[in-house]
Amino acid sequence: MRTASQGAPGLAVTAGDVVAARARIAGHVVRTPLLPASWAPGELWLKAESLQPIGAFKLRGAVNAIARLRPDVRARGVVTHSSGNHGQAVAWAARAAGVPAVIVMPEGATAVKVEATRELGAEVVMAPAARRERVAGTVRAERGMTLIPPYDHADVIAGQGTLALEVLEDLDEIDTLLVPVGGGGLISGVGIAVASLSSRTRVIGVEPELAADARASLARGHRVEWDARSTARTIADGTRTPVVGELNFPIMRATVDDIVTVGEDEILAAVAALARRSRLVVEPSGALGVAAHLADPARYGRAVAVLSGGNIDPAVLFRALAFPV
Amino acid sequence: MRTASQGAPGLAVTAGDVVAARARIAGHVVRTPLLPASWAPGELWLKAESLQPIGAFKLRGAVNAIARLRPDVRARGVVTHSSGNHGQAVAWAARAAGVPAVIVMPEGATAVKVEATRELGAEVVMAPAARRERVAGTVRAERGMTLIPPYDHADVIAGQGTLALEVLEDLDEIDTLLVPVGGGGLISGVGIAVASLSSRTRVIGVEPELAADARASLARGHRVEWDARSTARTIADGTRTPVVGELNFPIMRATVDDIVTVGEDEILAAVAALARRSRLVVEPSGALGVAAHLADPARYGRAVAVLSGGNIDPAVLFRALAFPV
Repeated sequence: MRTASQGAPGLAVTAGDVVAARARIAGHVVRTPLLPASWAPGELWLKAESLQPIGAFKLRGAVNAIARLRPDVRARGVVTHSSGNHGQAVAWAARAAGVPAVIVMPEGATAVKVEATRELGAEVVMAPAARRERVAGTVRAERGMTLIPPYDHADVIAGQGTLALEVLEDLDEIDTLLVPVGGGGLISGVGIAVASLSSRTRVIGVEPELAADARASLARGHRVEWDARSTARTIADGTRTPVVGELNFPIMRATVDDIVTVGEDEILAAVAALARRSRLVVEPSGALGVAAHLADPARYGRAVAVLSGGNIDPAVLFRALAFPV
Repeated sequence: MRTASQGAPGLAVTAGDVVAARARIAGHVVRTPLLPASWAPGELWLKAESLQPIGAFKLRGAVNAIARLRPDVRARGVVTHSSGNHGQAVAWAARAAGVPAVIVMPEGATAVKVEATRELGAEVVMAPAARRERVAGTVRAERGMTLIPPYDHADVIAGQGTLALEVLEDLDEIDTLLVPVGGGGLISGVGIAVASLSSRTRVIGVEPELAADARASLARGHRVEWDARSTARTIADGTRTPVVGELNFPIMRATVDDIVTVGEDEILAAVAALARRSRLVVEPSGALGVAAHLADPARYGRAVAVLSGGNIDPAVLFRALAFPV
C-alpha cells in the first residue's frame, strides 16, 4: 500500500497513511452516501460530506489528528483558530476523544457560530482577527495543548483522504473526481488516495474565479498568495484561504490533474440545484464541483463531485433558491 | 420468514413479501443513509428517504409493483393519478423498466410538477380534480395499462416496507420507529417488517393534528374519513389523504403501537431544524417524525424518524427557515 510513497518519496502523506487513518476514524465519522444526481446532464454522483455531524468533511482530519497524539499529550487537549468548519470539527473530535479543546475565534464572529462551538463542549476564546494565530500559540504554550492546523498537517491530510477510499469502494470506473480547493487539505488527501488506487481517475480541483490561488500556484510551479481583498469577494467562504499549505502544494503538484474555476452565479445556481433537485443543503464552497460539472458535463465523463460542507448562512440559501433550476 | 403471516393470517402482506421486494428493487432505488441527529435531545436517527432520486420513499413501492407484473402486462404500461410524489415515482419506475406511463394530474397542478413528471418520460393527462380517478380508469381500459395505486395495494406496501429492513440492518436495539402516515402505505409495510424482525421496536405513526384520520381510525377500530376541508389546512400535504387504505388498515391495527399528532408550527420547526442542523431539505410531511420526537424525546428511547420525502415548495422552505432552531 506504500507504492505511492515509493513513487513520490518527498510527499508528507502516503496512501498507506490514508488507509490507516480510515481504520482510526471508523465509527467516529459518518460513512457518507454517494448519491446519483440523476437530474444532471451527463453522469454525476455526489459524495455528501455535508451529512457529517458538523456538516463538513473536516471531521475526518480532526479525528485522525487527535487519535494520532500520544495519550499523555492528547489528554492535555487541543487548540485551533477558526471561525468555520475546522473549529467545529476540532471541538467535536475533542469531545468524542474526551479531551479539552480551545477554539480561538475572531472578534466579530456571529453569535450563532460561537454558540454552536460552545454547544460542542469547547472553550471559545475571542481575539482580534489579526492576532488569532498568536493567541492560539499562547494557549498552546501555557496549557500544553496541541495545535491542530486546518490543512497544512500530515494527519489532517490523511484523514481528509479517507473520503476518497469510500468513493472508490462505492463506484467503479470513475473518470473524474471534482474537489473544492481552499487550503488544499481535502484535495491533497484525495489526490494521494486516488493516485495509488485508481489510476484512471482524474482529480480536478475547483475554485471560485475570485479565489483561484491554487490554480495560479499549479500553473506557476510555486505557491502563489492571493490578496484577501480579492478572495473576500467570493460567496464560497470555505475557499478564501489566501494560499495553499506548504505540505499540500507538492502533493497537489504530484496528484492533481487540473484546477478549473467557476463564477459566483454558477456557484449559487449549483446550491439551488442541490437543494431543489437533490434535497441537500450545501454551502457555496461545497457546491463548487457541481458548478464545474454543470458548466461542462461532457468534459468529465463519469464524475463524482465532493460536497464538502453544508453550513450555509440561511440568507445565502434564500438568495440561491431564487435561481432558476 | 412467514411467521408474521402465520400469526396474522388475514393480512395482505407478509414479512416474506417485504424481503422478496427488497431483492426485486435492489439496484433501482438508493439504499438511503441512516444519519445521527446528534443535535437533537435524546437519541435520534434519520432514515433519509428524501435522498431517493425523486425525493421520496414512493419509489420503492412503485418499482416493486411494476416488477411484479407479468412481462406481457408490464409491457403495455402503467397509469396512476397523482400530482405528488407517487406520480413521479411511477413515472420514474416505468422509465427504469422501459415501459410507458400515464400520470393523470389535476387541472391546476403547478407547471413545475407537470414538467418534472414529463421530464421523467411520462405522458401527463390533465383532468378536473374530481374526475382524476375516472380518467385514469378510462386510460387503463382503453390502453390495457395497469393501475398502480398510491398505497392500497399489496405490492406497493411490500415495497415501502423495504426501508425498514435497511434501518434494522444499520442500527441495533431500536426502541421506536417514527413514521409519517398519509394513506398508510409506508407505515403498514414498515409495520409488517418490524413486527416480524424486531419485536422490541415500537412502530409509532405521526400525523398532523389537522389530518389525524388514522389516529381516529385506530382509536375507533374502523376506518374514519376526515373531511378534505379539514385536512387541506395542514402544510403537510403528503398526509391529506382523507382515509387510510382498506388493505392498510388491518395491517396497521396488527402492527402499529400508537399514532401521535403534531401541530403546524412544530412541523415547520422540524423542517427548519433538519435544514439547518442536518443539512437536509425535507418536506413538511417528511418532518413529522422529527417533530414528534422534539416534542417529547424522552418518550421514544433510541428512535429512528423516517424522513419520507423532500419535495418542498421553496416558499414553504423560506417560511420554515425563519423558525428558531
